[in-house]
Amino acid sequence: MSARSSRKARGDRTTRASSKVTALTLRWVGGPGGYLSLLDQTLLPARVKYLRIRELPVVIDAIRRLAVRGAPAIGVAAAYGLVLGLREEAPATAAAFRRSLARVKKRLAASRPTAVNLFWSLDRMAARAGALAGGEYSFRELLRGLLDEAREIHEEDQRLCRAIGEHGGKLLRSGWNVLTHCNAGALATGGMGTALAVVYSAVETGKKIRVFADETRPLLQGARLTSWELMEAGVDVTVACDNAAASLMSTGQVHCVVVGADRIAANGDVANKIGTYGVAILAREHGIPFYVAAPSTTFAPHTASGDGIPIEQRASAEVIDGFGVKTSPPGVDVYNPAFDVTPARYVTGFITEQGLLEPPYKRNIARLFKTAGTHG
Amino acid sequence: MSARSSRKARGDRTTRASSKVTALTLRWVGGPGGYLSLLDQTLLPARVKYLRIRELPVVIDAIRRLAVRGAPAIGVAAAYGLVLGLREEAPATAAAFRRSLARVKKRLAASRPTAVNLFWSLDRMAARAGALAGGEYSFRELLRGLLDEAREIHEEDQRLCRAIGEHGGKLLRSGWNVLTHCNAGALATGGMGTALAVVYSAVETGKKIRVFADETRPLLQGARLTSWELMEAGVDVTVACDNAAASLMSTGQVHCVVVGADRIAANGDVANKIGTYGVAILAREHGIPFYVAAPSTTFAPHTASGDGIPIEQRASAEVIDGFGVKTSPPGVDVYNPAFDVTPARYVTGFITEQGLLEPPYKRNIARLFKTAGTHG
Repeated sequence: MSARSSRKARGDRTTRASSKVTALTLRWVGGPGGYLSLLDQTLLPARVKYLRIRELPVVIDAIRRLAVRGAPAIGVAAAYGLVLGLREEAPATAAAFRRSLARVKKRLAASRPTAVNLFWSLDRMAARAGALAGGEYSFRELLRGLLDEAREIHEEDQRLCRAIGEHGGKLLRSGWNVLTHCNAGALATGGMGTALAVVYSAVETGKKIRVFADETRPLLQGARLTSWELMEAGVDVTVACDNAAASLMSTGQVHCVVVGADRIAANGDVANKIGTYGVAILAREHGIPFYVAAPSTTFAPHTASGDGIPIEQRASAEVIDGFGVKTSPPGVDVYNPAFDVTPARYVTGFITEQGLLEPPYKRNIARLFKTAGTHG
Repeated sequence: MSARSSRKARGDRTTRASSKVTALTLRWVGGPGGYLSLLDQTLLPARVKYLRIRELPVVIDAIRRLAVRGAPAIGVAAAYGLVLGLREEAPATAAAFRRSLARVKKRLAASRPTAVNLFWSLDRMAARAGALAGGEYSFRELLRGLLDEAREIHEEDQRLCRAIGEHGGKLLRSGWNVLTHCNAGALATGGMGTALAVVYSAVETGKKIRVFADETRPLLQGARLTSWELMEAGVDVTVACDNAAASLMSTGQVHCVVVGADRIAANGDVANKIGTYGVAILAREHGIPFYVAAPSTTFAPHTASGDGIPIEQRASAEVIDGFGVKTSPPGVDVYNPAFDVTPARYVTGFITEQGLLEPPYKRNIARLFKTAGTHG
């Protein structure tokens, strides 16, 4: 076999592998009377079960209990959720439609406070509704137009993931071990992921990559989801407890860290799954590059710094009663923030759909929003 | 109430509180025909159950499956285990006794590789057997003498814990929050603990202290054991996932870190529960003092540095099948070392029974062994 055909065969094999996990998370089935098919990630890896969602409260509940999670996926789910919420209310007049839209948008926006894609997606849907509402009022036309917009947001997310993967894949060398935290994979997006898109893309070009997946307490998105989707895709993966990351680094087993993000402030501070900040410090201490992979939809140009990012505090039961076994005495105090903030100075670079974004972040993030037409 | 009597009342109350948890871990019941009563810590916090152990294999199994854990407690359990092993074999001659002793010692030494107190305790028991074997052979006398030695090791451990607490308690200021990793409390020793002895002692002198207990994956010694014994003692405790330590530190909630140790090399490198090294880096990054509390029995003067410390690798099931729920796909690779090594440069000081040991560590650790008569 020639070098070229060997590369091609490898490429084909790995492209097939990554296509196995792309678009697993959610899809809209049918026309405006259809439903949202959404993978219930709380049941993974034991069960692969899709929910058929036809009602707004079920979408909100799915976001709250993390059946769907990951900033980009939440954004896409919220867009479809807006369609479902409006369909339910079926407002008879243009004025009633405006009230319904505001009400449904507010309910969805209250589902989770940190991920910025949620608000970005809802704002974009509302802007589209405003643009569509020009002529004579037709609820049917509006609903069809909004479903088209939700689908466009979804397809755009897939394109963003692919572009992030292509830009980031070039940063990885064959033979590298990549440590990641939580799940910023296909399961966190409408496409092939953000941090894991970087890995998939590198593997698709024939590079040999192993992923160390932090298990990511309390809800074990790394142990449950990252390991599952990488194994589905045929990528080598090793699970480790969060507290083993320093040991992996000091023994020379980690060449690069790539994580996702829930919100990136204008100065480059990053809110992401609790534990990300600790990993960033450890990477710095061991001289290991620390990349954040995220689409421009995850940047919040109006959030000046990490201090302005609200951090969701979640129930103590997630920590001490998460496996059907009570792991602490009843009544013990628990600290359980869903996210932490990594200051921009720990970030080697942001991998976006437009390429690698390096310091100085304030200037270069501002520039991203001047060039990114649709996300201004 | 005057300030003095108020202080006294507070002191009495807190002394009572700490006495509730001292000597919970294990005790010998009866004479040479008696048994080892040992708390099965794998069942905590749901059940408080003591095992009545009369046979060597049960002691070894208890050490292996972490029913008893913590370097000092393993040392005490092994001393009693040696008595049980010899009683079982009941050698008829001095030569048979020497063979039995070597065999039982070897079996106990193979139970866990990292904690140095295990080997120290077995060597001390063997030395005592040698000293006792001078006159005419009497198995009954030898067994009685060895039980006395095991009890002496146990009582000495209680004195070491108390002294560590008194020296370390002075370092804590009232109002401080102390972060600890794993369990270096009463449950890890034959007495009132090492790292937690420091907390108990501070509380007993009237200081207000809150403990943040890292849950300590995979076996949750922090969530299960540290929280339990602190609540029993009436000390404020908050449980957090290991990956939340950086968030606690960056938000100013941690004033001091105190941990235990499984083995301290001659240069001050520390082997302790996996995750300790990461906490040390985070503490350094946030300017928070990082203390290691341990008796001189945990120092290994013949281990030159951390490179010479064997690190136990444990079963992957502890990580991905630890709660009766499979949290990763079957067959996934797992990295599960029981310990990591914290280089000496991250340690603010060692709190030993002889006081605070500060850099330069190589010189000052060597000095510890010149002055510590019994542990040379």
